[in-house]
Amino acid sequence: LRRTGGPDLSLIVSDRPASAAAVFTQNLVEAAPVTLSREHVRRAGARMRAIVVNAGNANCCTGGPGMRAARETARHVARLAGCRPDEVVVCSTGVIGVPMRVGKILRALPACARGLAATPAGFAAVTRAILTTDTRPKWAAAQVRIGGHEVRLLGFAKGAGMIHPNMATMLAFVLTDAAVAPPLLQRALREVTERTFNCVTVDGDTSTNDTLAALANGASGAVVGTALRRPVSARAGRRGNPARAEYAQFVAALDDVCASLARQIAADGEGARRLVEIAVRGAANDQDAKRVAETIATSPLVKTALAGADPNWGRILAAAGRSGVRFDPARAVIWLAGVKVYSRGRPLPFSERAVSRRMRVPVVPMMVDLGGRRRSRSGHARYWTCDFTGDYVLINASYRT
Amino acid sequence: LRRTGGPDLSLIVSDRPASAAAVFTQNLVEAAPVTLSREHVRRAGARMRAIVVNAGNANCCTGGPGMRAARETARHVARLAGCRPDEVVVCSTGVIGVPMRVGKILRALPACARGLAATPAGFAAVTRAILTTDTRPKWAAAQVRIGGHEVRLLGFAKGAGMIHPNMATMLAFVLTDAAVAPPLLQRALREVTERTFNCVTVDGDTSTNDTLAALANGASGAVVGTALRRPVSARAGRRGNPARAEYAQFVAALDDVCASLARQIAADGEGARRLVEIAVRGAANDQDAKRVAETIATSPLVKTALAGADPNWGRILAAAGRSGVRFDPARAVIWLAGVKVYSRGRPLPFSERAVSRRMRVPVVPMMVDLGGRRRSRSGHARYWTCDFTGDYVLINASYRT
Repeated sequence: LRRTGGPDLSLIVSDRPASAAAVFTQNLVEAAPVTLSREHVRRAGARMRAIVVNAGNANCCTGGPGMRAARETARHVARLAGCRPDEVVVCSTGVIGVPMRVGKILRALPACARGLAATPAGFAAVTRAILTTDTRPKWAAAQVRIGGHEVRLLGFAKGAGMIHPNMATMLAFVLTDAAVAPPLLQRALREVTERTFNCVTVDGDTSTNDTLAALANGASGAVVGTALRRPVSARAGRRGNPARAEYAQFVAALDDVCASLARQIAADGEGARRLVEIAVRGAANDQDAKRVAETIATSPLVKTALAGADPNWGRILAAAGRSGVRFDPARAVIWLAGVKVYSRGRPLPFSERAVSRRMRVPVVPMMVDLGGRRRSRSGHARYWTCDFTGDYVLINASYRT
Repeated sequence: LRRTGGPDLSLIVSDRPASAAAVFTQNLVEAAPVTLSREHVRRAGARMRAIVVNAGNANCCTGGPGMRAARETARHVARLAGCRPDEVVVCSTGVIGVPMRVGKILRALPACARGLAATPAGFAAVTRAILTTDTRPKWAAAQVRIGGHEVRLLGFAKGAGMIHPNMATMLAFVLTDAAVAPPLLQRALREVTERTFNCVTVDGDTSTNDTLAALANGASGAVVGTALRRPVSARAGRRGNPARAEYAQFVAALDDVCASLARQIAADGEGARRLVEIAVRGAANDQDAKRVAETIATSPLVKTALAGADPNWGRILAAAGRSGVRFDPARAVIWLAGVKVYSRGRPLPFSERAVSRRMRVPVVPMMVDLGGRRRSRSGHARYWTCDFTGDYVLINASYRT
């Protein structure tokens, strides 16, 4: 399906039925596989068996034939994996509005099924076959002991927003051998997404195919949260109740994996030379902090200044000022690359050359304190973005054909 | 004050006291002259006499000395114009966070006052002296007959968002010889701003110094809206009541001038090669239409596609889809450069090469119909933006010093 050739079809199969949870794009325009997978997870979230992913065609704005192509793909995978079609998650990434040549997928699936291997090489192959304009594969792993069992989590992802002319999609997957009931897995995934994948931006454009899916098949013997009836927070888990403690441990591991993938996505943003970690504190609440961080992270002026290693605190302050969040600029403090550059309404006398040198690194920290350390303002957030280079424009302005 | 040299101080004086109205930046971080001018317009809005504008220094994040510099400037202008300090509007544009060398302004003001001339050359000089990174002056004029008198409106503007490292500001001014009471002038200005200056974007970054000010001194003898007591709409003006009709005529002329200036600003956006006029219709209401238009207008992916003359309807649809406005993508229709490219959930079979050729012009029209012509969905909006080129990044990534 890829115009450039190379592997573009991936199959992931669980030995046993797995709990499934998923978070999909919030774009009103959604691709056929998103509509289908949403339906499958809702219907068969307790016994999911497989994920199939193709790159090269997003199967979006493809009408009835597109939906039939997604369904046929699920049916073929089900036959090969010995499960029901609704036990298959289908994902596509690539060009929008081009009819899906589903025959090519169906013919290639048997070879994919024969090649299934629980090996590092098999995993590495999948992390590469899902990529589009990414420059490198992205994966992360975590291990955690729950109830005497060693639980493993393995995550991999592609893309960052919509990152090529008509190439759509962020896709991310987390596989674990913990046993987690679907509603709890869904809650954990939502909770973690809010502070990882939802805190990353390359260009602010959300895609029609974004999908984050998690499968938990219980092969480790560890059970997370069976005793769990009432809502819990990660913090509550530290007190007593073993089920809650296990949930907190699992969420912490899931957070590690997802945060790593989110960072990798921002770092590999189109044309990016550096990853920027934005921390905002001193807000009235976490939502306000996130809104300020997001406005800074998506500001073209902040992002181009980062490309030029320009310690341009004025743009950071002005972005915070237009975020819609109330704060007193005269109390705000800004640190850039570890140097305090603005405080109490005015720039500090720092060496622009020295700070610029500190910004010429792969990971640049930025911190904005909105409240000047008052106790009542403890809202905070972190956000990842990348610099905005001429290569971004080059890549995205190039004519498709 | 300019590092590059050249005229950077402008003085506009009205022969007689003028009604004043103004709209200022909504950024929480605001420059000293904005704070001061807001106060002056509130206090002396019925007898404003002068506007003074400097380029080269935004006088923002300059603390107490910055505020004193703005006040001193107003005092000096007042002495030269024979008025009170609060009858002066002060505007600054340029670098943020650099102390204002107000002495240079005060020393230059007498020469400015001596050079005052109600001539085309005098006006042309002012339209140039207020510029920063703009590539050309921007002005517009309109004439309208009100109550037997010929009324003139003359507008000029600079900038587009924050368009240079630490260069801030859009400034726009409209001068007219109609007589309009301050509250009515303010209402007209707000009404027109909503559909002109508030419908233009270059990079989505609002500045700390944005100011739109209008002076109406009544020299023409025409009086707008004296009989006006209750709220009116432009539409109501067409029915009977002469005061309302005059208000409608005046607003229409003001709209002409401001729309022209707004278009000129987008067309001269940093690095821009083409102006894009976005029309959205078929929305549930005008607010929804504007929100969709704004999301499309600020999307880096749409703007880079425009730079590449890529008829990438998928990005336009996806931007509309993430705007937060509910609509049915299967009913939406998209026209690009006058060609219908998407309808009923799928692309139409158009020639990409032909549409691309039609996009290689200075002004590209784009239309999105969200509702497929149903009567209940009559909300519409227009928005102006420009393409996003490598030059934008080059200009904004270049290190300040």
